[in-house]
Amino acid sequence: MDYNKTFEDLLAVMKLDGRYRTFAELERIAGEFPTALWHKPDGETKRVTVWCSNDYLGMGQHPEVLAAMHKAIDMSGAGTGGTRNISGTNCQHVALETELADLHGKEAALIFTSGWISNLAALGTLGRVLPNCAIFSDAQNHNSMIEGIRRSGADKFIFRHNDAAHLDELMSAVDPARPKIVAFESVYSMDGDIAPIAAICDVADRHGALTYLDEVHAVGLYGRRGGGVAEREGLAQRLTIIEGTLAKAFGVMGGYVTGPATLIDVIRSMADSFIFTTSLCPHLAAGALAAIQHVKAHPEDRARQAANAAQLKAMLIDAGLPVLDTPSHILPVIVGDAHLCRRISERLLAEHAVYVQPINYPTVARGQERLRITPTPLHTEAHMRALIDALVSVGSDLGWTAARRAA
Amino acid sequence: MDYNKTFEDLLAVMKLDGRYRTFAELERIAGEFPTALWHKPDGETKRVTVWCSNDYLGMGQHPEVLAAMHKAIDMSGAGTGGTRNISGTNCQHVALETELADLHGKEAALIFTSGWISNLAALGTLGRVLPNCAIFSDAQNHNSMIEGIRRSGADKFIFRHNDAAHLDELMSAVDPARPKIVAFESVYSMDGDIAPIAAICDVADRHGALTYLDEVHAVGLYGRRGGGVAEREGLAQRLTIIEGTLAKAFGVMGGYVTGPATLIDVIRSMADSFIFTTSLCPHLAAGALAAIQHVKAHPEDRARQAANAAQLKAMLIDAGLPVLDTPSHILPVIVGDAHLCRRISERLLAEHAVYVQPINYPTVARGQERLRITPTPLHTEAHMRALIDALVSVGSDLGWTAARRAA
Repeated sequence: MDYNKTFEDLLAVMKLDGRYRTFAELERIAGEFPTALWHKPDGETKRVTVWCSNDYLGMGQHPEVLAAMHKAIDMSGAGTGGTRNISGTNCQHVALETELADLHGKEAALIFTSGWISNLAALGTLGRVLPNCAIFSDAQNHNSMIEGIRRSGADKFIFRHNDAAHLDELMSAVDPARPKIVAFESVYSMDGDIAPIAAICDVADRHGALTYLDEVHAVGLYGRRGGGVAEREGLAQRLTIIEGTLAKAFGVMGGYVTGPATLIDVIRSMADSFIFTTSLCPHLAAGALAAIQHVKAHPEDRARQAANAAQLKAMLIDAGLPVLDTPSHILPVIVGDAHLCRRISERLLAEHAVYVQPINYPTVARGQERLRITPTPLHTEAHMRALIDALVSVGSDLGWTAARRAA
Repeated sequence: MDYNKTFEDLLAVMKLDGRYRTFAELERIAGEFPTALWHKPDGETKRVTVWCSNDYLGMGQHPEVLAAMHKAIDMSGAGTGGTRNISGTNCQHVALETELADLHGKEAALIFTSGWISNLAALGTLGRVLPNCAIFSDAQNHNSMIEGIRRSGADKFIFRHNDAAHLDELMSAVDPARPKIVAFESVYSMDGDIAPIAAICDVADRHGALTYLDEVHAVGLYGRRGGGVAEREGLAQRLTIIEGTLAKAFGVMGGYVTGPATLIDVIRSMADSFIFTTSLCPHLAAGALAAIQHVKAHPEDRARQAANAAQLKAMLIDAGLPVLDTPSHILPVIVGDAHLCRRISERLLAEHAVYVQPINYPTVARGQERLRITPTPLHTEAHMRALIDALVSVGSDLGWTAARRAA
């Protein structure tokens, strides 16, 4: 067995397909986001504008967040040195979990080292411990939810994306006595569309199901206190479990679930990906706590982000660029070809100091390759104008926008 | 379906079994490790000595580590706001990966948000992409390796713990043409024993297998530069992949794999748990880099830790306490009953300000419940004397040590 040959062949296929990913090496500059230094492969650096970050509000550089982190490092040091059970539970974790439960109006919360793990642990555990459980999963759910469901061993039923009627149809065909979970997202990351939460909860209630809502692209951004779309629509209490992240609008890292105390205790007690993992550093919990407290009290950041997203969308449409008409802050500009998507991104970066990573398979389906643009409150009108000019220039050079207009 | 009742029943069974875990809430005090503040359930705090941390060298409070973290926060802020592919690769990640590859003498390294994920991602991906792969797994491998192997879908063959002859027997029964991986650990966390690495590599070589060594409880602690047991024994180059952690001897958080560049590129390109996760905060990478550079250059920390472990072990034996005779820094004191183990731990904490978490099922097999004691270079002779006195006193009160002696 020539292992190296096998690995080389796998990578060669990805390259041929346009799926091979090259990471752009950045140096974030606290205080200057969305500007960053791009470390070019030749060793030189160049200032660029980041247009594809999920640091949606720029909290990753917010002075209150950084001050909380500095303070906690001075007080408690770096890592915890243990799993939550073995010397790894710190007062900063407990305070953050209390704050998160409050944010979503739930009894309890549990934090994880990532959002990916929070979905794996929560869905993987609930689907396993509920006897003969059936999980109903939106067709566009994130990889981490899919993996959690798969890992649980529960029967999985996939309903058409955002289609409550199809969910009802599927649920009606399953024994009413079986435990059930309906798992979906509020804002879908790649299309930027939003779930009909009330309609899905109606169906779930009718069939006696638990509801599991992933709000990772919504927490901090929607709702009076940044509790997400469920809060904005007054529906938080109808969701059994709300899952979120500390790594996007809250600017740090880690994930979490919130829900009824007993249910959260089951995940805490039985999820191996939680049990066997060193806990989040105390200062990360302290930084996230500061971010949440700030975001709760400052709806004007959310409003400015929404206004910037609306303005940029109008500018993209004016320029004839193929942006999806989304109801969220995520602006996907469709390219539809992996190689072209990569070439556009490379030219934007090299020639226009605009950084938007190409999104190719498996993150989106083939034929749906795109530039996913995420305006923040910190992008200025000048940033937006430069982005539009760059897109129009590169698009025209590569025959992308012309082809789109002709189509 | 009464969900809450189901969850309550599950927890009740765990409580009856002695398996229900209560987390001790700590407040780490930078500069005073292994002393910490215990936040008691009644709200009071009490200074305690931590004897169960995997911050094996106290690097979690080391001034060089904390300074590197402060500096990187000032420079680059908190989180990265993206997956490694989408604006989340930073210069700090690249520098750390270069350092880790060097530590283990490998071509390349890849970092993850935890050691659990590094095993899931690496074994899960390799076992899946190598056609018809057979994975040979030590019977005592960690949960994260077991989950990675399971997730890969590869055929799994479990060899008796540390038994190279049994491994040979199992490998001989498998088609020589099939791709194979031998997955094992160097220091086993709960028993503190060490694998016969050379013998296992001999067998693996004979059968043309890749070798995968988990060194999470060894990196920083063994070898001239802290490269682990494989480095100490001059065997690092015989391992295809060495996996490690940033969360134990290096005092921060995160995990990693090192190995041939092409193989690491396959994991980077195809592991969904890696692809879909926000990257480690830049300052954590900077802190880990500082820790590794310090640990590489300071073998005296390792020597002091080894001396303390030897001294404490002798004291435990002198006191008639049932410590396993391990060749590593981990000192398991066997209790053999979940409820008793918990009671001993509770009394040590409440009455003697000694914190050693009980280790019960599923972390160890039933009947193998224990106190797992981990001396660091920062534990003093006075700490050790206080620990022994506390163990003897509580053990005698609860009839534990007497029963052991009679047995």
